[in-house]
Amino acid sequence: MNDAILGAIEGGGTKFVCAVGFSAERVLERVVIPTEGPATTLAAVMEFFSSAERTHGPLRAFGIASFGPLDLRGGSPAFGRLMNTPKAGWSGTDLIGVFRRRWGVPIGMDTDVAGAALAELKLGAGRNVRSVAYVTVGTGIGAGFAPAFWTGARLLHPEVGHLRVRRHSEDGEFPGVCPFHGDCVEGLAGGPAIRLRWGQELDALDPSHPAWAIEGHYLGQLIASIALVASPERIILGGGVMSNGRLLPHVQRAARDFLNGYVEPLNDGGALERYIASPGLGDQAGLAGAFLLAEQANSGQ
Amino acid sequence: MNDAILGAIEGGGTKFVCAVGFSAERVLERVVIPTEGPATTLAAVMEFFSSAERTHGPLRAFGIASFGPLDLRGGSPAFGRLMNTPKAGWSGTDLIGVFRRRWGVPIGMDTDVAGAALAELKLGAGRNVRSVAYVTVGTGIGAGFAPAFWTGARLLHPEVGHLRVRRHSEDGEFPGVCPFHGDCVEGLAGGPAIRLRWGQELDALDPSHPAWAIEGHYLGQLIASIALVASPERIILGGGVMSNGRLLPHVQRAARDFLNGYVEPLNDGGALERYIASPGLGDQAGLAGAFLLAEQANSGQ
Repeated sequence: MNDAILGAIEGGGTKFVCAVGFSAERVLERVVIPTEGPATTLAAVMEFFSSAERTHGPLRAFGIASFGPLDLRGGSPAFGRLMNTPKAGWSGTDLIGVFRRRWGVPIGMDTDVAGAALAELKLGAGRNVRSVAYVTVGTGIGAGFAPAFWTGARLLHPEVGHLRVRRHSEDGEFPGVCPFHGDCVEGLAGGPAIRLRWGQELDALDPSHPAWAIEGHYLGQLIASIALVASPERIILGGGVMSNGRLLPHVQRAARDFLNGYVEPLNDGGALERYIASPGLGDQAGLAGAFLLAEQANSGQ
Repeated sequence: MNDAILGAIEGGGTKFVCAVGFSAERVLERVVIPTEGPATTLAAVMEFFSSAERTHGPLRAFGIASFGPLDLRGGSPAFGRLMNTPKAGWSGTDLIGVFRRRWGVPIGMDTDVAGAALAELKLGAGRNVRSVAYVTVGTGIGAGFAPAFWTGARLLHPEVGHLRVRRHSEDGEFPGVCPFHGDCVEGLAGGPAIRLRWGQELDALDPSHPAWAIEGHYLGQLIASIALVASPERIILGGGVMSNGRLLPHVQRAARDFLNGYVEPLNDGGALERYIASPGLGDQAGLAGAFLLAEQANSGQ
């Protein structure tokens, strides 16, 4: 039983979810703050934690799981800052400094998807395996890994949404929407690409619409790439585009085609379907991950 | 100073290099054994170590860095065996059991490329960074990472040679040579693909030949994929196809095009050229890696 009161921040492009509590399962107070400019939003975040601390007692550690890209390089003078992000006004924002200055307690920080991966590994769809990737498919496409590796000792956190993929034969003309790459995975298969190409959300399209196979083709390649490079024991697919469950079988089918029997542990009946899984925590993974990052920071991990 | 005598095995598709010594820099005896059938080759390997032990004294640990794919899953009953490999006769061979039964000392085992990555990190082109990928481009294409992560807790070791890549516009017809995937990276850009497509080694082709840009295109995509998924602080490119150094600038140029400024730490002048580097240890990395695996096993890491 952990008796330390922790602060958890899930920083997203549309909202910051903040909570204080002993753990993700024992939350004392929680608030949702819309993501506006960084000064306005961070002031509201600080006010929430100051107020919650007066109510519940001193905060021992913070966990921050945020959208990125983030500078998480050990020893970097910009550690904890947002790098160039399409989110207007947020590039260069120091997300960790305000907590350091105001509280001076241990702070664990990672990307939102790394937090979700940690939460799924400890509490969700990864409980019976030893390593996971958590892939989110929404406005952006990204992935995090747990257990964390090369913490502070890597070039950048994973940015798998920007992988180039082989085009689907029925999707040759669409240029993609990524401002950096055009037709990387995120540029071809994220929410904005779906809406621009087909004029509506995937869920609104008939099951016979080619969009399903095209989405599956790109995401299946992404899954195959993660399996061949990092090779976690499970890959968990979350985010708004995945949320109704109808897309997952298309992704599994495409991943099977791309791997084509090469990865032996996936060749047993049903193994690949278990490998590419739905989240166990739904939209709770981000905040739960922030609590776990705070716990790790508090215990000196 | 390490006073334990260690055994090191670099298992390759054409030869097994075996040595005993205190470290890679202090080798007492070394032998090269051609890779024939597993029974013949492993008998010669065992005979070398038995004889060396009589000469130099008891072996305290072994390190094995071998071609794969290998079963390295913790708790697997087939741990240390080769999985399905195109190397005739070797599928299913137990590479670790003979050492366990004959010596009963600690054994560190990983892929040949993981061993090379470890050696480059500790002793070679990765000495001034904190994490590396070592990519070999020869008959096969593969990569290893160091420091090792998810040891024993992953689906399979990295198999980056089997990533699908976007085709080069002047290379649309060649079907590729991979028996599993046809035109994965290895099927398009490994030594056999070069010889089949252009009738000779890359080195024999004029600098104006399109082969250079085509090879660079595929390998640059591979490098970009590794940078976006695992994101080591340096990627070291070795193997026979890379050995004369003329291909590296083509790879760097293509990787820059694929990343297109997205990975900020690579945007400073010269950063990308330092990021994608030549090996520091040349063809010594494999055996040096095997010694380091033996040292880790001996010290209980």
